[in-house]
Amino acid sequence: MNTQHLLDQIAFIKEIDKVKYIQRKTKLFNSDRCENDAEHSWHLALMAIVLAEHSNEQIDVLKVVKMVLIHDIVEIDAGDVFMYDTVKNHDNTDEERLAANRIFGLLPEKQAEELITIWEEFEAGETNEAKFARSMDRLEPLLQNTSNDGGTWKEFGVKYDKVYEKKSVIKNGSESLWNYAEGLINESVEKGILEK
Amino acid sequence: MNTQHLLDQIAFIKEIDKVKYIQRKTKLFNSDRCENDAEHSWHLALMAIVLAEHSNEQIDVLKVVKMVLIHDIVEIDAGDVFMYDTVKNHDNTDEERLAANRIFGLLPEKQAEELITIWEEFEAGETNEAKFARSMDRLEPLLQNTSNDGGTWKEFGVKYDKVYEKKSVIKNGSESLWNYAEGLINESVEKGILEK
Repeated sequence: MNTQHLLDQIAFIKEIDKVKYIQRKTKLFNSDRCENDAEHSWHLALMAIVLAEHSNEQIDVLKVVKMVLIHDIVEIDAGDVFMYDTVKNHDNTDEERLAANRIFGLLPEKQAEELITIWEEFEAGETNEAKFARSMDRLEPLLQNTSNDGGTWKEFGVKYDKVYEKKSVIKNGSESLWNYAEGLINESVEKGILEK
Repeated sequence: MNTQHLLDQIAFIKEIDKVKYIQRKTKLFNSDRCENDAEHSWHLALMAIVLAEHSNEQIDVLKVVKMVLIHDIVEIDAGDVFMYDTVKNHDNTDEERLAANRIFGLLPEKQAEELITIWEEFEAGETNEAKFARSMDRLEPLLQNTSNDGGTWKEFGVKYDKVYEKKSVIKNGSESLWNYAEGLINESVEKGILEK
């Protein structure tokens, strides 16, 4: 293996350190400290490993883990867009596509292509792996907000209907996790931490 | 699947959030901000995926990824021990074993056993997967210190011989990565950021 091949991989490894600086709106569990994208991605990867058995369909767990580990890397260039942002579209902007090409493009060509393809698969959300990965991405902030007395729902005035609509994507990956999540959303209304 | 099974998994998922608060001595790349264990584990997981082809032996990449994602979870109870600590032993203290039993023990029994076994395999460092996972764990702070003008080496007065000894573990996982790492260590001496 030639040296440039390894140096390109090292360049990518150094570049993605910037993911640790990208602040999400959501806070850590029982906390007022914002989570960053690296922490979030680590948590989703472990959630995918632990919860894989709940997937509606058989899934390649390694592929799901790759998806969640890399899904926010494009935000190094494109920035984090809040799930409930009403102006900016969350998914697959031209900016994110350019970012994917630049950042994954630091890697040797074959590897760059593999990761761009996996990122696109996650974004499209159509395969079993992408559906399950996306259900992890919706479940974690739900757990965080319910542990934080409403968290970003209260902070940004997000209401039940919007939360229910966004979170129902969990069902595409896992009916059983959606049953649990739906219960949490309804309980949140009863507790007065989510407005109907 | 009964509800308690899922609730146990959720309890584990909430508990491990605490990993995000465990500060390492090592700083982020080109930074004076300490890295936390969740960020570190995320980075190692992606390094393992990107660098797997450099492993001396065929490896099960998913198992390596599981190892690095969970390897520091015991520090929730046992705390982070600095690699170059001369008083406290880094590996496999009784405290860490108790922590593993408590934290992984939150999971349903079969899953708890699986993750404890993987954690023990990482700690023992004898299988191909553990050797490669451990080489990732040694390589990341080397990349960080060289990007940080000596970083923790300078800060804590760690010298060449000690660094060389600790980092040579990389060779057990990957000869080619060790060649690269050895070059970095020698260059660091030449640059005056690591004392001989």
